[in-house]
Amino acid sequence: MPMKSVFSQDPFETTRKEWLKKAEEAKPELHQTIKQPLRVVHLTEDASSFQGWKTYGNGNIDELYSSSFKEMKETVVDFGEHLTGHFSFQVKALNGTPDAPLRFKFTFGEVPSEIAVPFEPFTGTLSRAWLQDEIITVTQIPSTITIPRRLAFRYVKIELLASSPYYDFCINSMECATTTSAVNAVEPLLPTTNNEVAAIDKIGLNTLKECMQTVYEDGPKRDQRLWIGDLYLESLANTYSYRNHNLTKRSLYLLAALSAENGFLHANVFETPEPHAQAGTHILDYALLYNVALLEYAKATGDLPTAADLWPIAKRQVEIAKEYISEEGIFDVEKAKNLWLFFDWKDSLDKQAPMQGLMIFAFNNTIELAKMVGKSDEVKDLSDLVQKMKKAARKQMFDKSLGLIVSGPNKQVSLASQIWMIMGGVLMKEEAKFTISKAASMENSVKPGSPYLYHYYVEALIKCGMAKEARKIIVTYWGGMMKKGADTFWEVYDPTNEKVSPYNFYPINSYCHAWSCTPVYFIRKYPAIFQ
Amino acid sequence: MPMKSVFSQDPFETTRKEWLKKAEEAKPELHQTIKQPLRVVHLTEDASSFQGWKTYGNGNIDELYSSSFKEMKETVVDFGEHLTGHFSFQVKALNGTPDAPLRFKFTFGEVPSEIAVPFEPFTGTLSRAWLQDEIITVTQIPSTITIPRRLAFRYVKIELLASSPYYDFCINSMECATTTSAVNAVEPLLPTTNNEVAAIDKIGLNTLKECMQTVYEDGPKRDQRLWIGDLYLESLANTYSYRNHNLTKRSLYLLAALSAENGFLHANVFETPEPHAQAGTHILDYALLYNVALLEYAKATGDLPTAADLWPIAKRQVEIAKEYISEEGIFDVEKAKNLWLFFDWKDSLDKQAPMQGLMIFAFNNTIELAKMVGKSDEVKDLSDLVQKMKKAARKQMFDKSLGLIVSGPNKQVSLASQIWMIMGGVLMKEEAKFTISKAASMENSVKPGSPYLYHYYVEALIKCGMAKEARKIIVTYWGGMMKKGADTFWEVYDPTNEKVSPYNFYPINSYCHAWSCTPVYFIRKYPAIFQ
Repeated sequence: MPMKSVFSQDPFETTRKEWLKKAEEAKPELHQTIKQPLRVVHLTEDASSFQGWKTYGNGNIDELYSSSFKEMKETVVDFGEHLTGHFSFQVKALNGTPDAPLRFKFTFGEVPSEIAVPFEPFTGTLSRAWLQDEIITVTQIPSTITIPRRLAFRYVKIELLASSPYYDFCINSMECATTTSAVNAVEPLLPTTNNEVAAIDKIGLNTLKECMQTVYEDGPKRDQRLWIGDLYLESLANTYSYRNHNLTKRSLYLLAALSAENGFLHANVFETPEPHAQAGTHILDYALLYNVALLEYAKATGDLPTAADLWPIAKRQVEIAKEYISEEGIFDVEKAKNLWLFFDWKDSLDKQAPMQGLMIFAFNNTIELAKMVGKSDEVKDLSDLVQKMKKAARKQMFDKSLGLIVSGPNKQVSLASQIWMIMGGVLMKEEAKFTISKAASMENSVKPGSPYLYHYYVEALIKCGMAKEARKIIVTYWGGMMKKGADTFWEVYDPTNEKVSPYNFYPINSYCHAWSCTPVYFIRKYPAIFQ
Repeated sequence: MPMKSVFSQDPFETTRKEWLKKAEEAKPELHQTIKQPLRVVHLTEDASSFQGWKTYGNGNIDELYSSSFKEMKETVVDFGEHLTGHFSFQVKALNGTPDAPLRFKFTFGEVPSEIAVPFEPFTGTLSRAWLQDEIITVTQIPSTITIPRRLAFRYVKIELLASSPYYDFCINSMECATTTSAVNAVEPLLPTTNNEVAAIDKIGLNTLKECMQTVYEDGPKRDQRLWIGDLYLESLANTYSYRNHNLTKRSLYLLAALSAENGFLHANVFETPEPHAQAGTHILDYALLYNVALLEYAKATGDLPTAADLWPIAKRQVEIAKEYISEEGIFDVEKAKNLWLFFDWKDSLDKQAPMQGLMIFAFNNTIELAKMVGKSDEVKDLSDLVQKMKKAARKQMFDKSLGLIVSGPNKQVSLASQIWMIMGGVLMKEEAKFTISKAASMENSVKPGSPYLYHYYVEALIKCGMAKEARKIIVTYWGGMMKKGADTFWEVYDPTNEKVSPYNFYPINSYCHAWSCTPVYFIRKYPAIFQ
């Protein structure tokens, strides 16, 4: 990162420890619930099911628990819902005296394909160890075995790899000790809420609950950690549902405490073995959204002391971002070429215009935050910068003949560009309506690739008064996952390609992903839209 | 078993609990030692090495501990000696922030072939789970992972199955927390002892030490439990080395407490989760050798109260054995057809004559035991029975024209038959010398298949005054294992077929097996033979 030279001293040296302490003080107790499998199911290939696999059947669990597993050799159980926690099972002898160890393979899946398709050859670009298959040796019978790693799953496939000819046995119990920090009861929706919408809301709530642990995790299966982008969307949904504001507070403090020496926020942090960041990993759009998350937290809670306490880190993100703005007020791609910009899982997306819009959006929010904590004087030139950037954007990125925002040297038309310019207030309301509709309907515009950008798409639609269209995205995109059997919303979803994966191996995708939970936020914040 | 009908009531109902309590009181503390690997080695096929595999090289462990394991992907470490205990390893990052789990395969071997040959397809007749390969997911880095199962090994092969592209790491520590209840210092051999013999003695001591845990185990890799046959030979060696007589006491009490309802001793028992026997598993020759082990224990310790306390169970073994003796004083194969007789790993062995000899041997020992505890009146007819059986044996099983004991309907000539008739004192000294020499030199006589029977072979040779020949067996048979690289003596060893396995898969053989430790006993009991 080029930042180190810009700020040669750690401006937050003295406050980091204090912030970390406050993060630890706000750490929530996890609530544990014991869940048992509901039924024995079978797997079958089915072209009409999500990713080509479905489960069927409703086998009796008690029958499984008393039947010879040596004969059965393989089974699949369905817990009936997505769970995050520790899985245990018991084995006991049916006849004979256990004289030798048993060997099992357990495969845990959030969706049926994960327990159906072979993991080898593994073509993924992340560690194959994220895949949840574990080989377990049981040396004592009877015994209760708890698989060490925390798991995220609904389905469990159990395969017997070795047993003794001299005794028979059964798996006589299974359970998952689930955890979450989403404990508050959620307000019911208005009784007039559309049924389909209510069903989507429920899946969103489950998604959020599963990701709410001792931080806002991105996904309980993968990456199991706090990313700023996920935090922002989760905390929005949390405000309208579980209201565990302490978790937001903890997450904001953790990120601040673990920022780089120059104050640049790391895109993600880990809690164990002691809190630490993914060193060197910064995402500029995420860093700026931190400020928005902090403002939203302050607005939701009235906790001004926390907002004031963390104000210096928010201010620093703006200072860092300003280094990447040209004299003319345009996001300077060349200067930022070593920076990671995220926005979406979409390789082809040109990120200059989206970044221009996001910067303006984040700066506006930062100005509001400064006002709230009485620090307006510290960002007194920011309003002028925002005006300059808006003007420059309209001049250089708004193709008036097309009525569209274009991005980069190839003047790429993407929904992301329109969305973020609308979020930044660069376009007038009618312009906004036109651009976002046109970009959506154009055949060769770059469309969103993940629920993460779909969230901002819905937000932008609402912002420019297109409530009906916003509702339609919720009902078709998130509702599409629901119709395909989602218990929780997925990290990536392309209705035209169910096997799309940013990691080149779809079983490693997260199928319970924080950034996909925001129907909860929209449905509850804008109830009028969803009746 | 047909016994249940013979003794309809449990004659030991009241004493079992007391015996079990005494077994628990005598349970030894395990002594723990931390061992580290000595070197990095390589595996190579080598026709002149045991089972076709050898290790070579002397790579620096500290270099391994600081090198990228992501690059290395696979290594083999050598702890330099056979260990029994729990294996731990540490991983730590070398660069980058660990962002994803790691997946390893660890394979533990007592001998090189175990970590070299594939375990699949598995053709063995025991549970494949005895094989010591474990798949481990490491979710937190740095961390220390302890593999749950207790292991028995010298070599560890480590294979990396999955890692992240975003960080590098090393395995920065490995250790084994070994356990044994063999803690007493062993008397040094006479300085005049032959060097080769002294080296064999050392391997025997290691074998015994590894098998001495909270019971006399048969093998620390497999079956990890108390069998009467192993107990007898281990306790003989223990008397001349570690002198942990409490372990013998505990083992004798456990077996007694866990005998079948009719008092018939089970061939083997387990300690966990609570002490229990392998139900229905009786070996008549083992049950009778229990009496010999009890007598030897009493002689070694002078602990007459224990001998007296356990006398009723010893007496009961005789009563049970008598059910299988014909009117003529011959072991009745037909009556015993449902009983397991062991004697050796040798399918072709006819066991009638060996059993006849063993019964006489065990009865003689039982008479001595009765005398010692003042219970001669309870077995007052046993001497007459022994005389009758000796006479019958000589009449029906001693082919005077051949000068050999023959066994069964096909008049099989085996070393086992000669050995056990000598042990029983059925043959005169000169007859004995002749038969055992002739049976050994005959091309088509049935030879011993395991060190277990080799032990009695040596004992029989010494008994009939053939000290030179006894020494030769120790030096060629056990010395043969030593020359092939044994750190501990093996469960099975056929000099002409290194891949022989009673379980149809030689990697599942135990390569540290209690019943093979008895050079310790012979070398120390008969020092004059081994100078």
